[in-house]
Amino acid sequence: MFRVNEDYLKLPGSYLFSMIGRKVAAFTQANPDKKIIRLGIGDVTQPLAPAIIESLHSAVDEMAHAETFRGYAPDLGYEFLRKAMAENDYQSKGCEIKADEIFISDGAKCDSGNIQEIFAKDNKIAVCDPVYPVYVDTNVMAGRTGSYDAGTETWSDVIYMPCTKETDFAPELPKETPDIIYLCFPNNPTGSTITKPQLQEWVDYANKVGAVIIYDAAYEAYITEKNVPHTIYECVGARTCAIELRSFSKNAGFTGVRLGATVIPKDLKAGDVMLHSLWARRHGTKYNGAPYIVQRAGEAVYSEAGKVQLQEQIDYYMRNAGVIYKGLKDAGYNVSGGVNAPYIWLETPKGMTSWEFFDYLLEKANVVGTPGSGFGPSGEGYFRLTAFGSYENTAAAIERIKAL
Amino acid sequence: MFRVNEDYLKLPGSYLFSMIGRKVAAFTQANPDKKIIRLGIGDVTQPLAPAIIESLHSAVDEMAHAETFRGYAPDLGYEFLRKAMAENDYQSKGCEIKADEIFISDGAKCDSGNIQEIFAKDNKIAVCDPVYPVYVDTNVMAGRTGSYDAGTETWSDVIYMPCTKETDFAPELPKETPDIIYLCFPNNPTGSTITKPQLQEWVDYANKVGAVIIYDAAYEAYITEKNVPHTIYECVGARTCAIELRSFSKNAGFTGVRLGATVIPKDLKAGDVMLHSLWARRHGTKYNGAPYIVQRAGEAVYSEAGKVQLQEQIDYYMRNAGVIYKGLKDAGYNVSGGVNAPYIWLETPKGMTSWEFFDYLLEKANVVGTPGSGFGPSGEGYFRLTAFGSYENTAAAIERIKAL
Repeated sequence: MFRVNEDYLKLPGSYLFSMIGRKVAAFTQANPDKKIIRLGIGDVTQPLAPAIIESLHSAVDEMAHAETFRGYAPDLGYEFLRKAMAENDYQSKGCEIKADEIFISDGAKCDSGNIQEIFAKDNKIAVCDPVYPVYVDTNVMAGRTGSYDAGTETWSDVIYMPCTKETDFAPELPKETPDIIYLCFPNNPTGSTITKPQLQEWVDYANKVGAVIIYDAAYEAYITEKNVPHTIYECVGARTCAIELRSFSKNAGFTGVRLGATVIPKDLKAGDVMLHSLWARRHGTKYNGAPYIVQRAGEAVYSEAGKVQLQEQIDYYMRNAGVIYKGLKDAGYNVSGGVNAPYIWLETPKGMTSWEFFDYLLEKANVVGTPGSGFGPSGEGYFRLTAFGSYENTAAAIERIKAL
Repeated sequence: MFRVNEDYLKLPGSYLFSMIGRKVAAFTQANPDKKIIRLGIGDVTQPLAPAIIESLHSAVDEMAHAETFRGYAPDLGYEFLRKAMAENDYQSKGCEIKADEIFISDGAKCDSGNIQEIFAKDNKIAVCDPVYPVYVDTNVMAGRTGSYDAGTETWSDVIYMPCTKETDFAPELPKETPDIIYLCFPNNPTGSTITKPQLQEWVDYANKVGAVIIYDAAYEAYITEKNVPHTIYECVGARTCAIELRSFSKNAGFTGVRLGATVIPKDLKAGDVMLHSLWARRHGTKYNGAPYIVQRAGEAVYSEAGKVQLQEQIDYYMRNAGVIYKGLKDAGYNVSGGVNAPYIWLETPKGMTSWEFFDYLLEKANVVGTPGSGFGPSGEGYFRLTAFGSYENTAAAIERIKAL
């Protein structure tokens, strides 16, 4: 008789967004006349830029003729896209990353979930708290996290690194030595980031203790400050300790298009074994490449027209971020994020829990956000608003909050 | 210090297609005037059908406007595609599969590689021999297959079911009871298939011993004979023992477009646990859906125009299959497959090994095929040709082989 993977059963239900959905539905039913504004989910709303659309149409036309039709893509991605990324995201910033160290995928969520597979089961992970849930949940499913304590909402074999106002929303080096360290800057959900010297400390630490950093750079396009690194490979020594995850979802609006990449330098080794080879083996065995038309769309992100159009899109969202940040500050809230990231992280007022503030905002201002406690125990007492709505809705939502 | 997944290191190198590539390259260099014809790889060559192209363009246009732009897709796939599949692939054939039992993915390779994750590590798998390598390799990477014997090219904890001319290229019920049984009909690589009563025996067996069948139906569109099932759910009792993998790669030429689906009936349970729930959890945690534009292309496969155009494409490839089959038979070869599948499986003549015949065909006829031994030890002495080339090349290749 077959048996199931018991580690899957350890995972508590993922109630955050379904709970939000239920509460909003109940409110809407009771108050059909109220217009709700949603600043909760991290999904983009602006359409794809013209350069992307043009590239998609052109690639679709290629697929219509035998001479230009493309079947199976190279497992690791088309050279044209890997080269564009290597040049624009790394070499132009002085980082020594080659095209063949970049693996094209269908998105950073898949990569951040699958990457743990190439490590031994008894490796110990460290994560920020609060954190993007995929890092922990996928390690739970792999049996790497020990047992769950429902009271503290933590796993026995995970090292948590609190990121609260006491730490300026940055993690401190953990007391216990981890094998794998997940870092995401600019951060989801807090919107905070760290400077290049701070990131250099992590790289030095990882090299010293023999840990791997899995660096999620999904939000790098939103960086506006000079001293904030766009990639971990700006740091000396990152080639021997860091894997970087890249996304096209937020910089180019590809949440529904699906494209991402993982960078594994060939210098990153355990003994003689290159992690690059293991990830290549995983791609070759379990994956068949991102769609040709989507990889061509990715290439257009790096065209001259694409760069200009996408900067306008980011500026649009960052104007929203500014409106939220300034509006909440003016209204007396303690606010962080929003400067190098499309997320604004606020402290709930008057000692409210994250969920109490959610209810308060929904009922009094008809605005939907995300309770910080949904991202981990240290998120309790915080709340996330996102800049991905329309400008009009964002401005209206903030006026409502200020009027409370 | 981090450690790697040692199970990845157990995997012998995947030399089949790289060895073929090296041999062809060496031959071409030594014989620059010879025109090589490739009937080796299972990739399609015909362009996407007009109905698919139209649908892709239309979906791209939707992504260009805020009102019709689509961000994150539903984790499990858009309802429009799940509904089209449920109606066309199942309900119209009298099979009781509902839209919400279908999970849309980016391809059957990913699904066939990932599906093992929802099972316990100590479950024992059974595979046909020869076999599509992904089934075994992904179980090796998960640590489920024991140790490798380089002499017999087999794993200690895998049950092999030989499919040779002695068994009419169908597997027999295994002596040792497996927990998970991989079946693929019409079969890659042999091109053979089994009848509905034969498949019913497998379903009855699985229900009796408490095994799950993972049924790969990637080639069902090529079935021409009436008594061959298009889906395992044509069999009574399959809802309590079978998962089905579906692909758009070969029926619609989506090898470079990437779309697939997995069907898990809600009646398939281990105790109280629905495998459906576990797979949904994996999708929700590690996957972000197939691209919107690709799911619309999938929908067009089921449109009236799409159905007509894709049948023409399949007829085109099956005409090739007929040319290969008849030509080889006329030349005195023992041939199977090619009737319900785009693969022709031939016995190598004069006791040649699969690789000896590869060399012979390359040197004497300048035709490239795939050595059967690359698919498993029982593939030794066999050879695969595919029907996915152009008609002209296929006919020319067969003329050359007949002239030997």
